[in-house]
Amino acid sequence: MAKPDRLIYLPLGGAGEIGMNMYLYGFGPEGAERFILVDMGVSFPTMESTPGVDLIMADPAWIQARADRLEAIFITHGHEDHVGALGLLWHRLRAPVYARRFTAALAKSKMERAGQPTDEVRQVDAWPHVVHAGPFTVGFAPIAHSIPESSALVIDTPVGRIFHSADFKADPTPLVGEPFDPAALRKIAEKGVKVLACDSTNVFNAHSGRSEASLIEPIGLLMQEAESLVVATTFASNVARLKTLAEAGRAAGRHIVVLGRAMNTMLKTAHAAEVIDDFPETLDPLDMDTVPRDRLLVLATGSQGERRAASAQLAQGRYMGLDLKPGDTFLFSSKTIPGNEMAVARILNLLSEKGVRVIDDSDGHYHVSGHANRPDLVTLQTLLRPKMLVPMHGEHRHLATHAALATERGIAAAVAPNGTMLDLTGDAPRIVDTVETGRVYLDGTVLIGAMDGVVRDRIRMALRGKVAVSVIIDERGRPVGGAWVEATGLPDNPKMRDGLEGALEAEVGRMLGRAKRTELDDDDALDASIQRAVARICNDAVGKKPVCTVMISRLEP
Amino acid sequence: MAKPDRLIYLPLGGAGEIGMNMYLYGFGPEGAERFILVDMGVSFPTMESTPGVDLIMADPAWIQARADRLEAIFITHGHEDHVGALGLLWHRLRAPVYARRFTAALAKSKMERAGQPTDEVRQVDAWPHVVHAGPFTVGFAPIAHSIPESSALVIDTPVGRIFHSADFKADPTPLVGEPFDPAALRKIAEKGVKVLACDSTNVFNAHSGRSEASLIEPIGLLMQEAESLVVATTFASNVARLKTLAEAGRAAGRHIVVLGRAMNTMLKTAHAAEVIDDFPETLDPLDMDTVPRDRLLVLATGSQGERRAASAQLAQGRYMGLDLKPGDTFLFSSKTIPGNEMAVARILNLLSEKGVRVIDDSDGHYHVSGHANRPDLVTLQTLLRPKMLVPMHGEHRHLATHAALATERGIAAAVAPNGTMLDLTGDAPRIVDTVETGRVYLDGTVLIGAMDGVVRDRIRMALRGKVAVSVIIDERGRPVGGAWVEATGLPDNPKMRDGLEGALEAEVGRMLGRAKRTELDDDDALDASIQRAVARICNDAVGKKPVCTVMISRLEP
Repeated sequence: MAKPDRLIYLPLGGAGEIGMNMYLYGFGPEGAERFILVDMGVSFPTMESTPGVDLIMADPAWIQARADRLEAIFITHGHEDHVGALGLLWHRLRAPVYARRFTAALAKSKMERAGQPTDEVRQVDAWPHVVHAGPFTVGFAPIAHSIPESSALVIDTPVGRIFHSADFKADPTPLVGEPFDPAALRKIAEKGVKVLACDSTNVFNAHSGRSEASLIEPIGLLMQEAESLVVATTFASNVARLKTLAEAGRAAGRHIVVLGRAMNTMLKTAHAAEVIDDFPETLDPLDMDTVPRDRLLVLATGSQGERRAASAQLAQGRYMGLDLKPGDTFLFSSKTIPGNEMAVARILNLLSEKGVRVIDDSDGHYHVSGHANRPDLVTLQTLLRPKMLVPMHGEHRHLATHAALATERGIAAAVAPNGTMLDLTGDAPRIVDTVETGRVYLDGTVLIGAMDGVVRDRIRMALRGKVAVSVIIDERGRPVGGAWVEATGLPDNPKMRDGLEGALEAEVGRMLGRAKRTELDDDDALDASIQRAVARICNDAVGKKPVCTVMISRLEP
Repeated sequence: MAKPDRLIYLPLGGAGEIGMNMYLYGFGPEGAERFILVDMGVSFPTMESTPGVDLIMADPAWIQARADRLEAIFITHGHEDHVGALGLLWHRLRAPVYARRFTAALAKSKMERAGQPTDEVRQVDAWPHVVHAGPFTVGFAPIAHSIPESSALVIDTPVGRIFHSADFKADPTPLVGEPFDPAALRKIAEKGVKVLACDSTNVFNAHSGRSEASLIEPIGLLMQEAESLVVATTFASNVARLKTLAEAGRAAGRHIVVLGRAMNTMLKTAHAAEVIDDFPETLDPLDMDTVPRDRLLVLATGSQGERRAASAQLAQGRYMGLDLKPGDTFLFSSKTIPGNEMAVARILNLLSEKGVRVIDDSDGHYHVSGHANRPDLVTLQTLLRPKMLVPMHGEHRHLATHAALATERGIAAAVAPNGTMLDLTGDAPRIVDTVETGRVYLDGTVLIGAMDGVVRDRIRMALRGKVAVSVIIDERGRPVGGAWVEATGLPDNPKMRDGLEGALEAEVGRMLGRAKRTELDDDDALDASIQRAVARICNDAVGKKPVCTVMISRLEP
């Protein structure tokens, strides 16, 4: 008997974490489903768990093994956690990429930088325009967020309609991009929504979200009252905020200067895509000194404390000819992402040392979130009246709380972290499989698997230090001239006359002198003995067991 | 002409950061002052800036060089950021240590564990009892905080009285330790306070602090309504909170179990010092299974997400025979210290995966701070009417804001981060010197300087990986058998047939083959050439320039 068709959902990234979004939908008989992939995003590394890594993305291995059944890739909007991995991973999947104009421009630049064919990115219009992709018909439904052309996906399948919210907020006046439009959403839901796959980021915020427009007054006042230079930082990709800030600056009679590559690129792309035509004219940074300080607004990258971004550079000293001074104002118009608090505090303190007045988001007057809060999530449920809710875009606790928010309102829901395959064919989501998922790192210029051990070794060296031992065994199998030891990142013990390296060389030398011929002949045995001796000596001397590399050179007869 | 006496203040730690408190006061002719030291605390390491480090403390080098003029060390209270470095650094200063009973017990255990003489810690009574220390007369004035016997210091000098607030909050009902007592403070100020050196931690909090007593009702309700097991975590040293939690548990008919070494030690010491006689009786963890789950309250260490603490262990799996289950409640009765957000979120998500109901401090119902907020700082100023205010215990931005809070009320103030020597003899603080300060790390079992380069090397290896190269030069100065390369923490380039190590060995081998005799004879030149080759190959192959160690072995004739 032929297997029946089924509709499945499988998150590969973004469900169980905030970042690196990558969601699969499939339709067809089990094992022969046709797929579409929604978003290919990145996350950013931390010293804590991913030192030295450049970017983190979901491992597409599962769909890569089934790439012949992948119909298309859809990018909902241009934020890095939705499009950042496209260029880096596209060659593993080789499916056509669909996005709206501005998002497509950003997606093409990702492809281009990675040496991938930009013509695989196809620009499409907003809903009701649709793309046919195997059993799926997909439209981009404009929805409010903090970057132009943010879109939810309306995914029609043979068994019903899926509304994939992507990132959104219930903002009637988002200032850039389309507003949250209840009438349009109700229309989309007219013939019934089977599944709402929904952003869970702000499920713990109990109050309705505020509009971007609510910032116009406080930011405007700040720009007017500031007695000298104003610097404002936010996410480079928060195009809405850049506009809010720039317009407030213009209204206060300030010239706008944009510092930082990411912000300039984003604005250039937005201008080219004609999504921010009314953005105030900007001044070349080289001309900053032609304008009095109290007539300047500098928009700077680095709201998360990034060490090389404009904000950090300005906090540290002169940057692009600009020195911050007492009387200047520095505005963080942004939320500090968990994990970045120390880096941001470092900048706040450097600015404090310069006598700069710092205004951060601690009182919530100068920033609003781009994501829907709990009451707004309920609003979307009410507008769409879905049969099922699949929480996505959140850590496990977000997904669990969001699922509970649906079930208590009579909507079937399931918590499905990465790798959890849901069957959505019936009236309630059903977990039908759990597949292995993982992460891929861009490490330098190379893609590696998170479990390859490379980063684990770096963390170990960071915690425990590193010892390299070189020994030479002569043609007759006898050690030549003791051992050479180099310790890196290990403290010395001041009580040791020849230091830790001296003590290690002495001990490994003694060990070699005592070693039996059979041990000296056996690389593995000798390596293990030296490792043990190094661990013991280091632990006794300084209380650490370092990562140890033993290099045994055998002279040939 | 003899130099006149002067009163100086010199923070060595805690001013310009939150943690590792260490403050000096001196009186006498310039260069011949007699000193007292207030507190010797630690800070905790982060993977970001201090990977592998065990504890961070202020470098006492400046006073160590003048240890013959140090009269005494005073410990204000038993928190780690005030007493944690005592045992580790005392041998550098060798001055008598004064503290109240409970604090002295904690201080003695620090001395004992470090092999230092415990009888150098002298137990003293509270103000109006005083200790004479050279030109200083010092009393311990009880003040509210979150640990028993917290004390401000009343420091009388020949030129007037200093009130050193230490950590405090304006709490009339702190539940353990003495309450904030306006009458007593007014009395201390009767004959005038010259200098108020004051806690700045919460200067950005605009509302008056809430009392520990305000937690009794919400925590009590939570303990009653929880349908099964309750686990609560807070700082082990927050003895007040432990008591609030335990009493709420008892009132709800729950048996109290304490999990984690730090909490058990703290409670044992508090019992021995008779500062928490009315603490509910606790149940041995081994007897947990004799009690129904809904009759248990577990107090667990690890509120900051520490990987080895009880909370993390419980979140990960079975610990001390206990498995958390759906229906259980886990309460974070604590603030997450900046930098620990990711570690705490990890635990929240692990608990969410287990179906445990998690309550964190995000709504502020289950935690109050131990530090005075802005209005409370003003209250203390009003009570003491000091001539001068010296903000301490804060990052630069806290100190600067706190100083402004004083000057706008007509009190002279100066921002004095670590190493800034203030002359307090006159009517306003005057910066008279800036001395070099630094940090000392406990790294394994050894004390090292922050600038020794050990930790810098570990961070470099964490970011860039490590390569060790071994080459052998024979008796006649010719390379033997190519080079041996070991790479650790570096990705491989899948396009390279023999991998990165193979490519490095080939390139170094080629380089050795081409090298002139003069280069082969010169260790430094050879080392530099190999380093360059390794950096170039690695950068081309994987986009990273690793830390590289070259070991050149020369065979002797």
